[in-house]
Amino acid sequence: MGFSLRPFHLFSCYDMSIIPKETAEQLAQLIRAWNAKGFSPATSTNYSFRVGADRLAISKSGRDKSQFSAQDFMLVDLKGRALPPFEGERSSAETLLHTVLYEENEAINVVVHTHSIYGTLLSDYYLKQGNLRLSQYELLKALPQFDSHEVDFELPIFPNTQDIEQLSEDFRQLYLAQPTTIAYLIAGHGLYTWGKSIAEAKRHLEALEFLLEVHYKKLLLAPH
Amino acid sequence: MGFSLRPFHLFSCYDMSIIPKETAEQLAQLIRAWNAKGFSPATSTNYSFRVGADRLAISKSGRDKSQFSAQDFMLVDLKGRALPPFEGERSSAETLLHTVLYEENEAINVVVHTHSIYGTLLSDYYLKQGNLRLSQYELLKALPQFDSHEVDFELPIFPNTQDIEQLSEDFRQLYLAQPTTIAYLIAGHGLYTWGKSIAEAKRHLEALEFLLEVHYKKLLLAPH
Amino acid sequence: MGFSLRPFHLFSCYDMSIIPKETAEQLAQLIRAWNAKGFSPATSTNYSFRVGADRLAISKSGRDKSQFSAQDFMLVDLKGRALPPFEGERSSAETLLHTVLYEENEAINVVVHTHSIYGTLLSDYYLKQGNLRLSQYELLKALPQFDSHEVDFELPIFPNTQDIEQLSEDFRQLYLAQPTTIAYLIAGHGLYTWGKSIAEAKRHLEALEFLLEVHYKKLLLAPH
Amino acid sequence: MGFSLRPFHLFSCYDMSIIPKETAEQLAQLIRAWNAKGFSPATSTNYSFRVGADRLAISKSGRDKSQFSAQDFMLVDLKGRALPPFEGERSSAETLLHTVLYEENEAINVVVHTHSIYGTLLSDYYLKQGNLRLSQYELLKALPQFDSHEVDFELPIFPNTQDIEQLSEDFRQLYLAQPTTIAYLIAGHGLYTWGKSIAEAKRHLEALEFLLEVHYKKLLLAPH
Repeated sequence: MGFSLRPFHLFSCYDMSIIPKETAEQLAQLIRAWNAKGFSPATSTNYSFRVGADRLAISKSGRDKSQFSAQDFMLVDLKGRALPPFEGERSSAETLLHTVLYEENEAINVVVHTHSIYGTLLSDYYLKQGNLRLSQYELLKALPQFDSHEVDFELPIFPNTQDIEQLSEDFRQLYLAQPTTIAYLIAGHGLYTWGKSIAEAKRHLEALEFLLEVHYKKLLLAPH
Repeated sequence: MGFSLRPFHLFSCYDMSIIPKETAEQLAQLIRAWNAKGFSPATSTNYSFRVGADRLAISKSGRDKSQFSAQDFMLVDLKGRALPPFEGERSSAETLLHTVLYEENEAINVVVHTHSIYGTLLSDYYLKQGNLRLSQYELLKALPQFDSHEVDFELPIFPNTQDIEQLSEDFRQLYLAQPTTIAYLIAGHGLYTWGKSIAEAKRHLEALEFLLEVHYKKLLLAPH
Repeated sequence: MGFSLRPFHLFSCYDMSIIPKETAEQLAQLIRAWNAKGFSPATSTNYSFRVGADRLAISKSGRDKSQFSAQDFMLVDLKGRALPPFEGERSSAETLLHTVLYEENEAINVVVHTHSIYGTLLSDYYLKQGNLRLSQYELLKALPQFDSHEVDFELPIFPNTQDIEQLSEDFRQLYLAQPTTIAYLIAGHGLYTWGKSIAEAKRHLEALEFLLEVHYKKLLLAPH
Repeated sequence: MGFSLRPFHLFSCYDMSIIPKETAEQLAQLIRAWNAKGFSPATSTNYSFRVGADRLAISKSGRDKSQFSAQDFMLVDLKGRALPPFEGERSSAETLLHTVLYEENEAINVVVHTHSIYGTLLSDYYLKQGNLRLSQYELLKALPQFDSHEVDFELPIFPNTQDIEQLSEDFRQLYLAQPTTIAYLIAGHGLYTWGKSIAEAKRHLEALEFLLEVHYKKLLLAPH
């Protein structure tokens, strides 16, 4: 019952070649539920959680998220290199967008990525502006830095690229400059967000996907 | 089978420190179903039912509604104070928006709150006007004061605030002046509605959420 | 497996006070599935099937369609009067909109009614015009009178009213004049359609609800 | 676990009058899941997979896809003629749109067809233009010819017709001229796509349906 809030780095006393089963199954169940909501068409998106100070479990490349299971995670180090016993396997092409977060903030234990209709659309629509501004929504309180709806939240947008190494470095610069960042968009591609626990990453993901849909539908209304 | 219509205050002969299990499970099941429809993203929304003349069961603070269970309710009195055996626990931050209804109308047994896309959008869009007008819809007959579609229904809208005590008093004034009120919106935040039974509160919630979606989609059509 | 196509009037050799269980359960299952798609908010909509030349099973008044079961049907005659053993019970307020169809066409065995977002919207939008025109859609071939998409289909729209007896007579006149009619809208209220079997009524309902959604979404596009 | 990627022509050593059960059940499960997403209203759409060099299993005519099972496939040859033991049965009216693909490309093992809201709408909207252009979307990488989002993808659109033989020949000419084609639209009707395996056809279908919805919703936004 309930999504795990336990600090993942406590696992560091365990055998490091083993992916914690309960956590992997909990996240896999959410990945299937998010797929059913349309957040991961085709074989898009990727997900990870911290297994130790120097390693994470991340989704393998090209998996269909409608039937994602705990066996679809593999271990990599903070450079994105496959760790035993997964040497022969390939992790998500966007692995470095995960590792940069675990490297830069040891409090981060879960990183999630969606590829939704509204994330795809709005990241493209506001690319030139460089961010999407959200304010006055009660649901902004689901984000950790806010305890009121009377705030201005800016969701950064990066241009899409196939050079993931460069993108991860660009993101690192932004994150070092603005360490309270809890999410960003990649244009025509989707949303990245993270948290201290599965529960927190889920809360960020759901709040942001909801606000993206609200924002899009608000754009369609004529002013009055 | 069927949602309970029995008068909740009849429970008053029971041990008052016990939350009626069957009712709690019935409402918890609906809370999960409404979550699946997108009515409670992140950990938003809250729900309650009357347990006696001076007490109610209300959802605990910060629960994920996708897996809400009967154990996620706690007992509070009409001032919103935790009752034994729940002294150490925290009820929803919006508890006073529930208690004011049980205080002012002893026929009310269930209070529900949604945080939907259309409730969020339209409560913001019509805030200056102070209400949202709906008329000529057959589904208005699902509301207790109407037996025809040829009516004008006004759904009051309050500005959002983090001062829940003030908001509950503002609502109390409105309710005392207009005791047939069966629902209201909070801007950028969502819908509150209630009823004599779970079945009635569900009917109000579903009718209003449907009409909010219809109203939004009608706004997008050009006049012709 | 498969929805029943057997002629319902063959049941006439059975005990007429009994509602055929298998058919009732098949239709009840569909009613729950349509509810999950949003076609019957609150306690709206009603459904019936022929049990004999002079009687039908119809949904009882005020039932929640999310948990509709075979026990939620009752027997009425072609004037809409409750038949034994259901004398004390009340059938849907719109019973006469069903009986008129069974009276006028002995080939009709199932009548269904939805209360969808797009049916509510478009029946209101085109009320003055008196009908909604659909053409060039492949899915029009799901309707019995067409074997091509190159047709013009007109879905009649009646103004909403609480005088169901008058509405049923108005519909009777239309049906006698245009006996190939297979569906109509009531403004701000929803869709009625029917068929020789559950399978046929389901095909009409799904085709028309789909085309209503397509038509609405087409209206939002600028010409180009 | 996972959708089959094994080359279907390896089945050619088996008894050719038998439809491979595991493959039929896997595809049937997907057909039901796509129906639940609204991709096959009424009894629309059809699906097939290669059983041997000269034969395929294809959905029987008029089946309801909400309860499609492995028994709803039948064997036909590359001219679309029913093979034993299915001589008395009728395959989908659009069988020749499937056979042309198996004839022209022996690497194709699965052909799927959806009839979605956005496929219906956009195929009609862009008919005069003859195709729908998609570019700069990350999800274009789910299509086999692309390894970047920086591409222009053109989805061909054919006018709708009831002359399926002619349409299959028109498509054959296009396919011979442009053998990298992996999908096309028929106006007011829907999408055809295919692949070497169920997994690949599913990836194409989901990526294209997602991009159709994104494209439609982008058309509604005012330029800024």
